[in-house]
Amino acid sequence: MNGAELLVKTAAKAGIEICFANPGTTEMPIVIALDSEPGIKPVLGLFEGVCTGAADGYGRMLDKPAMTLLHLGPGLADGIVNLHNARRAKTPIVNIIGEHATWHRAADPPLAMDIEKLASAVSGWQRTNKSPIALSLDLAEAVAASMYGQVANLIVPNDYQWAESAVDHIAAPQFSFAPIDPERIEQASRLMRAHRKAALMIGGRALRRRGLLAAARIKAITGCDLLTDGFPPYIERGAGFPDIMRVPYFPEPAIDLLSAYEVAVLAGVKEPVAFFGYKGIASKLLPEKCEKFRIDTDSQNVVEVLEALADALHAPPYSKISATVLSELARPTVPSGELTAEKACLTLAAVQPENVIIVDEGLTTSVGYYPLTAGLAPHSYLTLTGGALGYGMPCAVGAALACPDRQVINFEADGSAMYTVQALWTQARESLNVTTLICANRSYNILKIELIRAGIESIGPKALSLTDLDQPYINWVRIAEGLGVPAASVNTAEGLSRELARALSEPGPHLIEMILV
Amino acid sequence: MNGAELLVKTAAKAGIEICFANPGTTEMPIVIALDSEPGIKPVLGLFEGVCTGAADGYGRMLDKPAMTLLHLGPGLADGIVNLHNARRAKTPIVNIIGEHATWHRAADPPLAMDIEKLASAVSGWQRTNKSPIALSLDLAEAVAASMYGQVANLIVPNDYQWAESAVDHIAAPQFSFAPIDPERIEQASRLMRAHRKAALMIGGRALRRRGLLAAARIKAITGCDLLTDGFPPYIERGAGFPDIMRVPYFPEPAIDLLSAYEVAVLAGVKEPVAFFGYKGIASKLLPEKCEKFRIDTDSQNVVEVLEALADALHAPPYSKISATVLSELARPTVPSGELTAEKACLTLAAVQPENVIIVDEGLTTSVGYYPLTAGLAPHSYLTLTGGALGYGMPCAVGAALACPDRQVINFEADGSAMYTVQALWTQARESLNVTTLICANRSYNILKIELIRAGIESIGPKALSLTDLDQPYINWVRIAEGLGVPAASVNTAEGLSRELARALSEPGPHLIEMILV
Repeated sequence: MNGAELLVKTAAKAGIEICFANPGTTEMPIVIALDSEPGIKPVLGLFEGVCTGAADGYGRMLDKPAMTLLHLGPGLADGIVNLHNARRAKTPIVNIIGEHATWHRAADPPLAMDIEKLASAVSGWQRTNKSPIALSLDLAEAVAASMYGQVANLIVPNDYQWAESAVDHIAAPQFSFAPIDPERIEQASRLMRAHRKAALMIGGRALRRRGLLAAARIKAITGCDLLTDGFPPYIERGAGFPDIMRVPYFPEPAIDLLSAYEVAVLAGVKEPVAFFGYKGIASKLLPEKCEKFRIDTDSQNVVEVLEALADALHAPPYSKISATVLSELARPTVPSGELTAEKACLTLAAVQPENVIIVDEGLTTSVGYYPLTAGLAPHSYLTLTGGALGYGMPCAVGAALACPDRQVINFEADGSAMYTVQALWTQARESLNVTTLICANRSYNILKIELIRAGIESIGPKALSLTDLDQPYINWVRIAEGLGVPAASVNTAEGLSRELARALSEPGPHLIEMILV
Repeated sequence: MNGAELLVKTAAKAGIEICFANPGTTEMPIVIALDSEPGIKPVLGLFEGVCTGAADGYGRMLDKPAMTLLHLGPGLADGIVNLHNARRAKTPIVNIIGEHATWHRAADPPLAMDIEKLASAVSGWQRTNKSPIALSLDLAEAVAASMYGQVANLIVPNDYQWAESAVDHIAAPQFSFAPIDPERIEQASRLMRAHRKAALMIGGRALRRRGLLAAARIKAITGCDLLTDGFPPYIERGAGFPDIMRVPYFPEPAIDLLSAYEVAVLAGVKEPVAFFGYKGIASKLLPEKCEKFRIDTDSQNVVEVLEALADALHAPPYSKISATVLSELARPTVPSGELTAEKACLTLAAVQPENVIIVDEGLTTSVGYYPLTAGLAPHSYLTLTGGALGYGMPCAVGAALACPDRQVINFEADGSAMYTVQALWTQARESLNVTTLICANRSYNILKIELIRAGIESIGPKALSLTDLDQPYINWVRIAEGLGVPAASVNTAEGLSRELARALSEPGPHLIEMILV
């Protein structure tokens, strides 16, 4: 068995089922090895950010790693932005990066870069493979490391991929959560019983069903508010779940909201901070006088921690908690007339089906959507946790491959969409049930808002030229069709409702360009 | 004057005339400062790789730096691949990366990354600005550093961009080449007079007119062969210039070609190495027994070095050298029938106008083009020096902006084109005279060749799924039109000739999809 085969068989044994790849010459042995491994499906992305973003979406949905396969330093570099987003989202990813043959490195060939340095900017775990024999253990350790919510980067020289090895032992990942600390549970319990205004701020796995139900129990007994950070990686939402408030994007309303709390218990999430630093406004958003208490560590299972806290508080079981803690079914009606950002949000909320996966990179357009969705039929909601543009379309690819029996709707800003537009081709190639709603406001609108915040009263021609996306208009229908995705353009709420219903009723990907006034 | 204004004024004084930008919130002060600086034109790219690739193209044409403006670590990450290509091409670039406000860094906000680590993978010079007062000197030093053929990365915190400063002294770059070493010239001269089979291998500025003429003089007196590395960043070519042989891509023919030489004098280029390491084949392509002599250093002006060598050899002046050393005018005729890679090359060579700039990222399709062009009317030719895909379309943007009175033809592989397809939008926005020829062979053909080289007789279905680009076909006409570029599709040599003539006769960008059999 050669090193590449050892690596691929170890991945399959560890439960990896998919490999998002954009390989090159140095990864050919792994490509060949994939041909003899029935358990792993390779999926091609025409740009590496598609591969890493798809792995992020896949990992967020299933809470297990996909594999990615990238070509040398440049392949990694193109994939870094979505690895950054995955790192911030704590998504498990096993990223394999091919490297030149060990003996060829000294020649400093054209494509050589310092891969280790590049990878370290996003690595939770990182290793450069040192021998073909070690490839099985390296891969197994990468998988285990990823399962703590990290990007694991394994760099594999080409000659070690080819090298035949006598070893045929396939290693298995060793993974287990760290035990819960009863003392911290007790401390949190005392804090929350102290009759002070309390926020329970949750993140990570706590935003999945079991965690949300535990949080609902805690709210039922303590009356605390339930919050999460501004951009949760993955949250289950809708009727029957507690409504989780998100910390607003701009620091002023965030500080305003959080100023009410005397106690903040944090589980699966760190203390919220401002996205950007603005002169005279603090980085940290919770008031100084608020007592902050992180109840878990990154290596613990936050769901078990929350359940233990609920039990310590003698919270009622989920089946007995008051309906006021849980959202009731309530759905807006489809608005009418020319499409605005507000109407786009309302229409989507009015039309989206049960169990849909919403991938939100709608930025200034989608900001009003979340508050409309607490009472919708249950669904999953994913946001741009890491803040780096170009996550949406690839994330939708990964989510659709993770959950082939569910619909994916990608609420996508036109500016952001352009960074990783190549993802549409993979959506077409794999016939994925993804409907992309392009928010065509034809500008980097957030930058215009920032210019106004900075006190610029009239934006000059050069600044405008760096924030406007018209001249020329991007024709999203043509681009989508060019990449194999059927598309339509709408400029009314009725048109959006009609096209969205049509897209959801037909298999395969669709794109709807929403021309916004 | 605030820090951003100081920076922008310093750039203008240093002769920087263009800024390829994809800014974000942290770079708003620089965006605002550009509005009051008439000397610098901002050009928006919808993906950072477009900005860095355009700066590469601009720098290659003019041998002077463009500025780029990128947003934080993620913006840099998306720009790294074309900075890598620029680094390998020794293109001067001054890359400005915005950073969070210094006091906000400790909060580890979502977009924070280790920018210094990322940048160091491509930096020839690098600095993180430490105070607003230092911004002028930092920028001037960045410009000077870039002019030695380097990427200069300057990281500028947001609060220092805003900060008002009493300083209004605008620093100027201090740049000069290191003096020539007469002893090395003499050594090289002795080597080349020793009546052994000699290669003069030139690169960098030596591939511009003056350097080529000096090389022709040396060839005229010594009979040496003139070569350059496989992928020259920029070469002037055609009738009246000496024909410069390129080292072949695959190591076997390269080693075969170079085995003839007993002496290799290198000027502006390092010893050629194989693109990839193949088992049993050496990394270095010149034979061991060949005496290698690098005549210059990176900080010297290779043109002056070559002229000094020509003089030391008592070479005749250019006006007196034999016509056999220089290429004579000779142009192929347009072929006919179904379009193949060979016919695409022939048609382009037959039709291209004098003074055209050819940006070649045609890979397996364009491999036959260069040998056809020695006798064409004089033109410039740029190749993928760094090997990282996605250089062509952005490079064409930069070349067209550098030389607005010249035509640019981008010979572009369909696989490579997808990495930075966003560049077409900038071509449309700026009405650039760029004609893109898409080589639609609908596969990563080079990978199929590598699989055959690796002894794979029949490519399995999974390996095929990672190398084929059909299913669905990419419709380049629709994509181009979606991004504002008029487009046509051809499948015959006659059709290509006709559409190419039409594209060259109309202002603004065009795209021609060449469907290859």
